[in-house]
Amino acid sequence: MPLQQKVAIIGVGLLGGSLALALKKRKGIQLVGWNHRASSRRKAAKLLSVAPTFEKAVEGADIIVLCAHSGTITPVLKQLTKLVGPQTLIVDVSSVKGEVVQQASQIPGMNRYFVPCHPMAGKEKSGPSNADDQLYKGRFVFITPLPNTPASLIHRARKLWKNVGAIPIVMNPQTHDRSVALTSHLPHLLASALMNTYETQRHRSPSIRQAVGSGFRDFTRISAGNPAMWADIVEMNAVELKSFLSSFRRSLSVLEKNLRKGRSSYWLSFFKKARASREKL
Amino acid sequence: MPLQQKVAIIGVGLLGGSLALALKKRKGIQLVGWNHRASSRRKAAKLLSVAPTFEKAVEGADIIVLCAHSGTITPVLKQLTKLVGPQTLIVDVSSVKGEVVQQASQIPGMNRYFVPCHPMAGKEKSGPSNADDQLYKGRFVFITPLPNTPASLIHRARKLWKNVGAIPIVMNPQTHDRSVALTSHLPHLLASALMNTYETQRHRSPSIRQAVGSGFRDFTRISAGNPAMWADIVEMNAVELKSFLSSFRRSLSVLEKNLRKGRSSYWLSFFKKARASREKL
Repeated sequence: MPLQQKVAIIGVGLLGGSLALALKKRKGIQLVGWNHRASSRRKAAKLLSVAPTFEKAVEGADIIVLCAHSGTITPVLKQLTKLVGPQTLIVDVSSVKGEVVQQASQIPGMNRYFVPCHPMAGKEKSGPSNADDQLYKGRFVFITPLPNTPASLIHRARKLWKNVGAIPIVMNPQTHDRSVALTSHLPHLLASALMNTYETQRHRSPSIRQAVGSGFRDFTRISAGNPAMWADIVEMNAVELKSFLSSFRRSLSVLEKNLRKGRSSYWLSFFKKARASREKL
Repeated sequence: MPLQQKVAIIGVGLLGGSLALALKKRKGIQLVGWNHRASSRRKAAKLLSVAPTFEKAVEGADIIVLCAHSGTITPVLKQLTKLVGPQTLIVDVSSVKGEVVQQASQIPGMNRYFVPCHPMAGKEKSGPSNADDQLYKGRFVFITPLPNTPASLIHRARKLWKNVGAIPIVMNPQTHDRSVALTSHLPHLLASALMNTYETQRHRSPSIRQAVGSGFRDFTRISAGNPAMWADIVEMNAVELKSFLSSFRRSLSVLEKNLRKGRSSYWLSFFKKARASREKL
């Protein structure tokens, strides 16, 4: 990166804060943060210099990183059209890309600034106090450009992520949303649904708590994620998620039928296939 | 324990091997192991002294620990009726207790020897080479006695588990099987079903591999467990498991309906409840 690039991080939570910590170690970067809530700005100030206003934060920025939920990216992009300079790169880190790409494409000229990104990095603990300068290390970052984005702009986005140790991958937004629907959003729904079933059962039969082992803990760990973020994700990716949820539900009917029949060869082959696939992950 | 108790471990795998390692550290215990397969006996011999025959292994044993799947406990118990002495305690470590208790109760006098047990301990890696002397430390062990078992016999079983750092809990077999159906068997089915869905999808769209993050890995970790053991478990606990699977499947229909409607307040409350329950675990 050239000397003294200004990087503005809008929304300094776990992802923004971790990016700040990782970029701090690089030379020639002036970091500025901004959070909408005053209380969040005070927390952010422990990690990086916080601007007095949103406008000051993004003023003259070479790179603006929007760390907000998928549902709130478009309004911020609209605000930014009047504030960005000709050299500004805008990226985001939100989990669902189809709608973001579609909406951003309708803002005239946005393809000259905005490169949508989704780093496959996170933790169940949110907030800047859980920020970790190693969060992006070795993680894939999906880049789903708008139509007609200059190659040089995509290159700058890739470079940003490489700078913090991540592995950028350009992908179309539909493939992205379909992939994460299966590997991230469906497991999140299932883990949360199981926690809610467990909670109902726990009130009927308190001794069930003693039957919780490490398997249950691992399986349900993701359900401790940020509820507002996840409500946003399931709404933004409802179509892909519904398609996998519905086919998964049908596969559970098949399992139910086989539980009634008691065919041991069926189960052996079912568990063998699952194990073989898990061991290849 | 009195000096020179003989403890026979039948089936030296992960659970039996870990028990052997943990008991080795206690004084006054003579440990003897036995595996049906010659190749498994050779592996077991790295952990403890292996008897030349099954009969020699159990001969004069104060305690016999059956480390076999739920489905194979009854035949071994029948074999043992002719081999045990009046002071012999027999325990098992299998995961489903209702059928084991019911079948063992039909063997005359078995309540004077056999105390069914289920330690909530395990790993995805099976076999004696993964044995760990700390495996039982701090783990619950469910004890589901047969009808009319002498209190002194139950006391000896509790003592055995306390000796390796575990926490014994006496429970009726139905409550046990219902509890683990929800906290262990259902998650295992779901994780395995998701792995099988993923495998199908991976062949259609290879880029999905890149969308696998730590959440997916944690969620599916349990699906790498021993297929034969799990086939046995789902068959032995089919009734309880089917009841939870069916109600879980219905709860997924409700989620599907809400994905169609797109009510953000529904999802916020759904994820908040799940997180609150997970954080209390």
